[in-house]
Amino acid sequence: MNAIGYYNGTIGALDEIKIPLLDRAVYFGDGCYEACFVQNKKAFELEAHLDRFERSMALLKIVPPKSREALKTALSDCMAAYGPDTGLLYWQCSRGTAKRQHNFPDASVPSNLAIMITPKPRPEAHGTVRLMTAKDIRFTMCNVKTLNLLPNVLINQQATEQGYDEAIFVRDGIVTECTHSNVHLLKDGALWTHPTDRYILPGITRMGLIGICNALGVPVREEPFPKEALFTADEVLISASGAGVRSATEIDGAPVGGKATALLHLLQDEYDRKLTEETRA
Amino acid sequence: MNAIGYYNGTIGALDEIKIPLLDRAVYFGDGCYEACFVQNKKAFELEAHLDRFERSMALLKIVPPKSREALKTALSDCMAAYGPDTGLLYWQCSRGTAKRQHNFPDASVPSNLAIMITPKPRPEAHGTVRLMTAKDIRFTMCNVKTLNLLPNVLINQQATEQGYDEAIFVRDGIVTECTHSNVHLLKDGALWTHPTDRYILPGITRMGLIGICNALGVPVREEPFPKEALFTADEVLISASGAGVRSATEIDGAPVGGKATALLHLLQDEYDRKLTEETRA
Repeated sequence: MNAIGYYNGTIGALDEIKIPLLDRAVYFGDGCYEACFVQNKKAFELEAHLDRFERSMALLKIVPPKSREALKTALSDCMAAYGPDTGLLYWQCSRGTAKRQHNFPDASVPSNLAIMITPKPRPEAHGTVRLMTAKDIRFTMCNVKTLNLLPNVLINQQATEQGYDEAIFVRDGIVTECTHSNVHLLKDGALWTHPTDRYILPGITRMGLIGICNALGVPVREEPFPKEALFTADEVLISASGAGVRSATEIDGAPVGGKATALLHLLQDEYDRKLTEETRA
Repeated sequence: MNAIGYYNGTIGALDEIKIPLLDRAVYFGDGCYEACFVQNKKAFELEAHLDRFERSMALLKIVPPKSREALKTALSDCMAAYGPDTGLLYWQCSRGTAKRQHNFPDASVPSNLAIMITPKPRPEAHGTVRLMTAKDIRFTMCNVKTLNLLPNVLINQQATEQGYDEAIFVRDGIVTECTHSNVHLLKDGALWTHPTDRYILPGITRMGLIGICNALGVPVREEPFPKEALFTADEVLISASGAGVRSATEIDGAPVGGKATALLHLLQDEYDRKLTEETRA
């Protein structure tokens, strides 16, 4: 099948999967998720995504719906049923099904697991994007990959309507991240990226990029930087599990980057090589 | 039946209502809701709730799933099927059912309507609560009644675990509101309450309370006040559609209020009288 859905043990065509109205994801967004790129039925950086999923659940005090091994089996079952060569594997858990009340349900109520796989082309090695900036109005739990994504939805839509591919959030003058990507700079031969605190998601592709920099001897500065730094950087990069590492050609209508193409491509090619290697048939 | 559910035209027992996994409420919390108290199959302050629902949808750029009249018919159908004398009527809409992507779906995709009615006792006229304070970590779209409620869930649970009934959010030293109530002070014969900006929900019970004050000649000051003012107020009140107007006896372990009981009861009794009058069988 071309789009697979799963809910608490049932696998089927994605658009036929149903869940109870009383799942707490439905009315509170009370849960967390992960998404990773799939090729040849192999999920890229799966263990890192599972690690982060476990951290998100712990931070939200959600008891995992399954053991790590049982979750991996469910994800594999979905990938086995999925037809295309590449796709996006998404899974979420919510704090169970119960009558709507803010308090957590009884400890006897199990959490819910949902999975989807949908078509997604392999990221281009040297993809580019046009970006806009927007005020970061999100809550200060951005380190948790939660289902509370309305600001991300609204700002991403604004970007699309204005002809941009993504939007960069700026909080009190400091660049945090994008609506569904991390953002980084190359400047004077180093990678600059926001530290992992409550203002950004600790991206798996961000982590991979830092690992690549470390291996290649490229200095990494995990420090906040102001919006103005976007326009004086040698390159501006955004990273996301579904779209790889892309460079910005324009932000808010002004041209950016293009001043460290060799280093940019070195990092992108290494990311692309690892993706190929770890998802080989 | 004792708990009614509804989804896009289907009415039934609440715990049997199913919705698609691909409803955008499920993975983005991409929607808004309302809740009001029901007695004798009449929803208290229904028109005000419908007004706010329309404002929330407009702010989120969600096209209403039904006309106001058709929505009222659906709500009435649910109330007709509901057995008990009192309850909480809840409804939400989401931005439709579609493959997960941040951008809004095509304009041809209709929004979804869900309704629930669950048992809720009539609010006590002179109810009291014990409160704690907590850092307001929410996004700055609190004026919209969205389905992104994780911070509210987590802080409310913290309050419960610490033996409190509700938690008061404090942002940069200023009292905003509670996890699912507004908060107000009585001081020197006047009602103080946070202005309706992006930091609080414009509560229907808050609005009713202001209307009662106006009718009784009690001055109303819609101005931000600091956390310290909670402890020097004559009374601290919280208001919510499901629970009416209650006064605090304690905040963070310290006794509060009790210094303007006559005025407090005057306001509470008037609220209670209106509730009785407008939901008469």
